[in-house]
Amino acid sequence: MRIEILTTGDELMSGLTRDGNFQWAGQTLTGLGFDVTYHTTVGDDKEILEAAFATARDRADAVIVTGGLGPTPDDLTIEVAADFFNVELELNQAALDMMVQRFERIGRKVSETNMKQVYLPEGCHTLLNKWGTAPGFSFEADNTVFFFLPGVPKEFRAMMEEYVIPELKNLNPDMKKSCMRLVKTFGFPESEVAQKLEGIERDGVKLGYRAHFREIHLRVSSFGDTTSEAQELMNEFLEDIHSRLGHHVFTTTGEMLEEVVGNILQEKSLTLSTAESCTGGLLSHRITNIPGSSKYFLEGVISYSNQAKHNILGVPMELIEANGAVSAPVVEAMAKGVRNLAGSSIGVGISGIAGPGGGTTEKPVGTVFVGVDSSLSGTISREFHFRGNREEIKLITVLNTLYMIRQILLNNV
Amino acid sequence: MRIEILTTGDELMSGLTRDGNFQWAGQTLTGLGFDVTYHTTVGDDKEILEAAFATARDRADAVIVTGGLGPTPDDLTIEVAADFFNVELELNQAALDMMVQRFERIGRKVSETNMKQVYLPEGCHTLLNKWGTAPGFSFEADNTVFFFLPGVPKEFRAMMEEYVIPELKNLNPDMKKSCMRLVKTFGFPESEVAQKLEGIERDGVKLGYRAHFREIHLRVSSFGDTTSEAQELMNEFLEDIHSRLGHHVFTTTGEMLEEVVGNILQEKSLTLSTAESCTGGLLSHRITNIPGSSKYFLEGVISYSNQAKHNILGVPMELIEANGAVSAPVVEAMAKGVRNLAGSSIGVGISGIAGPGGGTTEKPVGTVFVGVDSSLSGTISREFHFRGNREEIKLITVLNTLYMIRQILLNNV
Repeated sequence: MRIEILTTGDELMSGLTRDGNFQWAGQTLTGLGFDVTYHTTVGDDKEILEAAFATARDRADAVIVTGGLGPTPDDLTIEVAADFFNVELELNQAALDMMVQRFERIGRKVSETNMKQVYLPEGCHTLLNKWGTAPGFSFEADNTVFFFLPGVPKEFRAMMEEYVIPELKNLNPDMKKSCMRLVKTFGFPESEVAQKLEGIERDGVKLGYRAHFREIHLRVSSFGDTTSEAQELMNEFLEDIHSRLGHHVFTTTGEMLEEVVGNILQEKSLTLSTAESCTGGLLSHRITNIPGSSKYFLEGVISYSNQAKHNILGVPMELIEANGAVSAPVVEAMAKGVRNLAGSSIGVGISGIAGPGGGTTEKPVGTVFVGVDSSLSGTISREFHFRGNREEIKLITVLNTLYMIRQILLNNV
Repeated sequence: MRIEILTTGDELMSGLTRDGNFQWAGQTLTGLGFDVTYHTTVGDDKEILEAAFATARDRADAVIVTGGLGPTPDDLTIEVAADFFNVELELNQAALDMMVQRFERIGRKVSETNMKQVYLPEGCHTLLNKWGTAPGFSFEADNTVFFFLPGVPKEFRAMMEEYVIPELKNLNPDMKKSCMRLVKTFGFPESEVAQKLEGIERDGVKLGYRAHFREIHLRVSSFGDTTSEAQELMNEFLEDIHSRLGHHVFTTTGEMLEEVVGNILQEKSLTLSTAESCTGGLLSHRITNIPGSSKYFLEGVISYSNQAKHNILGVPMELIEANGAVSAPVVEAMAKGVRNLAGSSIGVGISGIAGPGGGTTEKPVGTVFVGVDSSLSGTISREFHFRGNREEIKLITVLNTLYMIRQILLNNV
């Protein structure tokens, strides 16, 4: 079955809005085993839109159209669809009732403008929208089924899941059951992950790579005649991934690195505090993004100046003068200092040169030291040399620090 | 002139990679006054790719194809293009010379695999790639000109600017000269910005809106027979925007809010320190993303626990007990405490409930207090009630805090 996704809107053509609906639909449908063959985007123009419908009808078996179902004059999809299918618009009572109820709940009346949204093409199949105001609909023409959905991402996704995906499955009764997992790895470049996974492909499993900054993400789909068959295939495949990539796999269920670290800290009833220099608060920001992080994250210090390293963290000025602020002894002292200040199980200290200024021949931009102080690890530190711009060096440093904490917590150091 | 952008690659169809090239090209071409009429994406499949070429030829005057020029077996664009244009592939000496030189510089030899990239369709016009290995080319067929460019974003953008845009301008000799600016506003929702700008449209100016979280961005393009005419139109238009939106416009040249604040701090030789609770380091992270921020950002404290508020910042425990950690007196004491600790011109204190837990009837999730202590403002604080998930509340808080600092620095408070 050839599927075409047709996203519409001037804001997409002018690049002002990112076409997240297409990306989500591509991921979801491909993961389920469907073939997304064509993707088209056009602006809010009657003639172009109708031409795009015709092209899609001629080359695809199912067409998913998003956008243009709103109440404003540049929302043209319904009108153009009726012209294209050669039918009239008629008031859709079920859609109107739903809209009236929805508006009553928020104390508003349905305006004349909104009424436009509930006149749908005669003979269409209504897709009621429980997540917003614009109803969707489907229509079959010349053996091609068209689905019309709103462009608001939340509504689009919900209606894809509620109506379109089940219908696509109906149209493909022989389709296999599937199972999807997002595996994340850290510490290997994409080429090395690919090399280690060479030959891992097998029938019934699809593997997609995506470099997500320094993490390599693997989207795995498995297919079987039954869900448990797909699940079993998945388990075997994940085991194989594990045996090839070892501890570099930090999740097979999609969590972020800071979430993985947070979960281990909570399981082990340990607490954390941070002293950051070059990362400027990004480490604590990432850690505190996780709901419930106040249970294990006690405090952070951004000791940008040497004065702060001394005054707050108690790093001796002589130590800074003798070794430089970017050095192993200083980050170890920062880690100890903040652990002591916060009374936490683990203290982390980071100092480095994020650039673009501040580099020297001896310590060029990208030189970073990370220290950890805890009863699990004692006082340790690592020296890194990263490449990238300022924001990239901050981010690489934070990822490596989180990974280092994870390794310590798992006794892998 | 109808332009079609045809982006190719299985990684786009499966949603694993975001189609940033299209978004960039849409923004750039629309801003220059071109009409981007169609955008199509297809995967790495010979038959589909050739069909997409045919559709594009029939409906567009210029087609920009990206991707599939690499050395691997799934890079099919060159081969399919030759078939489609009905010509043979031939060795392109200029492209080969360039590749040999490029590889020599990094001490590599051109492999057989790479040789595939320098066999281009007979009669094409070569677009040499100075930014990577894959040469591009253009070809005219039935009055439609096709441009073939690599998919690597850096190479794609450079070659668009070096070759494609000048050629598109040649094909449209009557096109006006243009001028583009990115205006950013804060503090008004999109509907209010639109209302205040009602009727501002005029001949020779194009205005595009984009809600970027709580900021509303306005992409303005002006067009004239000469560059200075376009520039003059732009200046008048920006003045009109200013008179309608006042201080809510924080830049007309695209800077981020933290950059605007940093610039004013530097101009006025003032320094800043921060004490964050619910934002968890995001404020200091954003501030320290700006190169040179160490000149004005002295230190930050993430006082997640009450203990930290007391121990490091000197907030009296009785004050916390009497008012709660999320209160005006506490954030004012945090601001004073961190200003005192750092010896900075300005101290900022933030405390709030980012959720999802921790809310009460009196102080629901989204309640945030921001305090500032400085000689410009004295000790002041504001109470906010935000909606959103945890990360959104952190971000809204940081934006409002940055905006509050800007207003104080500009004596707008």
